[in-house]
Amino acid sequence: MKYSLFAGGKRLRPILMIETCRALEGDVNVIMPLALGMEMLHTYSLIHDDLPAMDNDDLRRGKPTNHKMFGEATAILAGDGLLNFGVETMLQGTKGLSGERLSNYIGAMKIIMSASGINGMIGGQVADMLSEERVISLEEMDYIHLHKTSALLEACVQSGCIIARAEPATQGRLISYSQRIGLAFQIVDDILDIEGNEEELGKPVGSDEKNHKSTFVSLYGMEASKLKVAELEHEAVGMLKPIGVNTNFLEKLARYICQRQK
Amino acid sequence: MKYSLFAGGKRLRPILMIETCRALEGDVNVIMPLALGMEMLHTYSLIHDDLPAMDNDDLRRGKPTNHKMFGEATAILAGDGLLNFGVETMLQGTKGLSGERLSNYIGAMKIIMSASGINGMIGGQVADMLSEERVISLEEMDYIHLHKTSALLEACVQSGCIIARAEPATQGRLISYSQRIGLAFQIVDDILDIEGNEEELGKPVGSDEKNHKSTFVSLYGMEASKLKVAELEHEAVGMLKPIGVNTNFLEKLARYICQRQK
Repeated sequence: MKYSLFAGGKRLRPILMIETCRALEGDVNVIMPLALGMEMLHTYSLIHDDLPAMDNDDLRRGKPTNHKMFGEATAILAGDGLLNFGVETMLQGTKGLSGERLSNYIGAMKIIMSASGINGMIGGQVADMLSEERVISLEEMDYIHLHKTSALLEACVQSGCIIARAEPATQGRLISYSQRIGLAFQIVDDILDIEGNEEELGKPVGSDEKNHKSTFVSLYGMEASKLKVAELEHEAVGMLKPIGVNTNFLEKLARYICQRQK
Repeated sequence: MKYSLFAGGKRLRPILMIETCRALEGDVNVIMPLALGMEMLHTYSLIHDDLPAMDNDDLRRGKPTNHKMFGEATAILAGDGLLNFGVETMLQGTKGLSGERLSNYIGAMKIIMSASGINGMIGGQVADMLSEERVISLEEMDYIHLHKTSALLEACVQSGCIIARAEPATQGRLISYSQRIGLAFQIVDDILDIEGNEEELGKPVGSDEKNHKSTFVSLYGMEASKLKVAELEHEAVGMLKPIGVNTNFLEKLARYICQRQK
């Protein structure tokens, strides 16, 4: 659990959660256990995705994957342990809360658990698995991206809004922002799998082609994919402007996600 | 998820939870989502335990195990899905609760998640895995039993007590009761793996010997094991008497666990 949790992840999800909350002047101490739990949920999903029965990956962030280090049985249990401990960590955060603050906290937890479950990330992973070795439709690819990656990013922004008691209009804008960076994140992943630097990425490139995987790039081509990322970056940043609080960090985060080289 | 959840389990854990709550005149409607979540947590652990990398079992309750039916990748995800959905189900149960009732509910949820996690069931499963192919000490076997099986049963009784707002003395007695039936449950499992009827059990006997697994029976012998079960049954039932509520069902449950043939 420790090995994978401290293997050098970007911490994108907890950062997004905390910085949304901070921008809206919410209590960062309250959201912290949710942010920690979120990173554990994300990490467990990577451990299980890398397993031989799933993507069968040997490298993650430049290091051997969990099952390569500790064996398959331990990797399965480390994943289960991180999912369970993520929930335990989030539940610990209820300490000292009551009334509306407690209801909001539990509301955020519901959103996170729903986004990571069968109607979110796990559903996306199942669809992804079923899509292997065949050309998929645009609708299927959208389903996979929306559920496997965007659902958690959206839940991060939503929980930041809930803890900071954001206005519905603000919440709506930030959710649109998160959907755009979620899709951009996935397309950039697909682009980097073709054009990325193996050393910087910490994993071999070309795995999508090797696994005969349909991606945004294989369906639309490289040029259209890059244009789409630029468009999503522009839209995401545009969503932030009218909110009327300091969204500098969220703007930088959107630009980073769209322009990242790893 | 559905296949394994409806494969004919005994529902021991939710029954124990609900009947503890009912005996103490607690609100059974409140505890129901916790009981449902608990059965999902238990079922996910069976799916993952049966995987080729773990116990590699082909049969469970007379039916092909999850990975035999749907493949390994789906079985891993079905397990993840049940763990996540168990938590979602428990969180849904907070609806309509507030004040002390809400705090108690969250307190019960914390106990359940801690019992199913690395300090409980998952910890026991890791220890069990590390104990394979060698003779283990009595302390190690105790650790495995206490964590892998007893922890969840104890959490069932504890959450029943919390939802029903039981007195500390009553809670203490019921926890002792649950620890005894938890240990008895495991010893009976070991006995049935030698003397049981394959058809009734729905799985092949002799798997512990085949896997060179140390059990209560292999360490103490059959006669002493049966005496121990009888002693635990006597003690468990004895714990119930002074509580002063109708514990008939809990008494029957203890006798069933100790005398079961499957």
